Amino acid sequence: MENETHALRLGVLASGRGSNLEALLEAHDQGRLAAQVAIVLSDRPDAPALDRARRRGIPALVIDPETTRARLKPEIEERYVSALREAGVDWVVLAGFFRIIGAVLLENFPDQILNIHPSLLPSFPGLHAPRQALEYGVRIAGCTVHLVNAEIDQGSILAQAAVPVLDRDDEETLAARILEQEHRLLVETVDRLAQARIRREGRRVLWGETSPGITRPNGGD
Amino acid sequence: MENETHALRLGVLASGRGSNLEALLEAHDQGRLAAQVAIVLSDRPDAPALDRARRRGIPALVIDPETTRARLKPEIEERYVSALREAGVDWVVLAGFFRIIGAVLLENFPDQILNIHPSLLPSFPGLHAPRQALEYGVRIAGCTVHLVNAEIDQGSILAQAAVPVLDRDDEETLAARILEQEHRLLVETVDRLAQARIRREGRRVLWGETSPGITRPNGGD
Repeated sequence: MENETHALRLGVLASGRGSNLEALLEAHDQGRLAAQVAIVLSDRPDAPALDRARRRGIPALVIDPETTRARLKPEIEERYVSALREAGVDWVVLAGFFRIIGAVLLENFPDQILNIHPSLLPSFPGLHAPRQALEYGVRIAGCTVHLVNAEIDQGSILAQAAVPVLDRDDEETLAARILEQEHRLLVETVDRLAQARIRREGRRVLWGETSPGITRPNGGD
Repeated sequence: MENETHALRLGVLASGRGSNLEALLEAHDQGRLAAQVAIVLSDRPDAPALDRARRRGIPALVIDPETTRARLKPEIEERYVSALREAGVDWVVLAGFFRIIGAVLLENFPDQILNIHPSLLPSFPGLHAPRQALEYGVRIAGCTVHLVNAEIDQGSILAQAAVPVLDRDDEETLAARILEQEHRLLVETVDRLAQARIRREGRRVLWGETSPGITRPNGGD
């Protein structure tokens, strides 16, 4: 198992349940992740993600956004940056963080903030991606881990996983099937980031030959 | 093997090489397709697709578009419709047909014209989809069989196949990997159309539980 003092240090921002955070924590506990969660930050005092971290003795702070708007004020983002810096964070992972990342965080962690989105971007950016996919009628949905930039869900793509859409699917069943893959893809991608050095060619991200994250359909051919 | 007099009759429109046409013809020859190509129509006298049909004794006509514009004149579309009607065509398949289908064909074959597009729609509609996918930097590309309507590449989706994008891919290698899946997906989808009765819910197409067309990455995880 990796020497933790040299493992990649993650700062996780989460507003909700934190199941993607849990996936990272479990993978680390099981030695499947060459990175450790150094701190968890939330905009919501009641976010279950906070308890998941504290149960493992990982610092978990609430930083009051002082607004209901999606976009954080710069002075609030400064507080996030300070907490992340104090924790010695290398990469920031948005794991269901219901706020829009602004210039202060982006400038302090350039190309070091990643997000997981429940669609095969560029299809279905924004809210309720599984619902959008069902309404459009795609037969293949999925999820995307991407770098965060100033435009929502438009940063360079690090990894994607495909998920079949079944006739019987409703938003809940499809979102659940996608979420399973989010957990796997996020862990795989962070682990690869900890061990690989990615290259950029325009929007394109290049790193080694293995292509993670295409799943077989349940009951498919 | 199915009694051909009752098999679904296809009219295939092709401008180019006709490799998707060839996939349909081979599948039929091998008894893998409960449908037969009744006629092939092209806007180009030199389209190899014409020879592929004639070699099998299938009627193959060139209908001169009398224009270089992508959109056919209504009177030309009438000639396509007449030829398709005379051949007793049930479904029209666009297999690399480099023209935009207009009102005359759409009204004569409502929801009976299908197209195969080399992307996971709604991502990358229009020309050079594999190039668009590479430039955007997706890790999963694919192809889509969809019903043709008045808006280009926006008809209801019948089936999709996912294809991994590899670091070493250029437009040619990715397009070739997608094309392999186009052949498989088109044959599977036409065969299912010949045997299933699809239901529509808004844009969504429902037909039985199997979900075709998610492939595993070459050398993937």
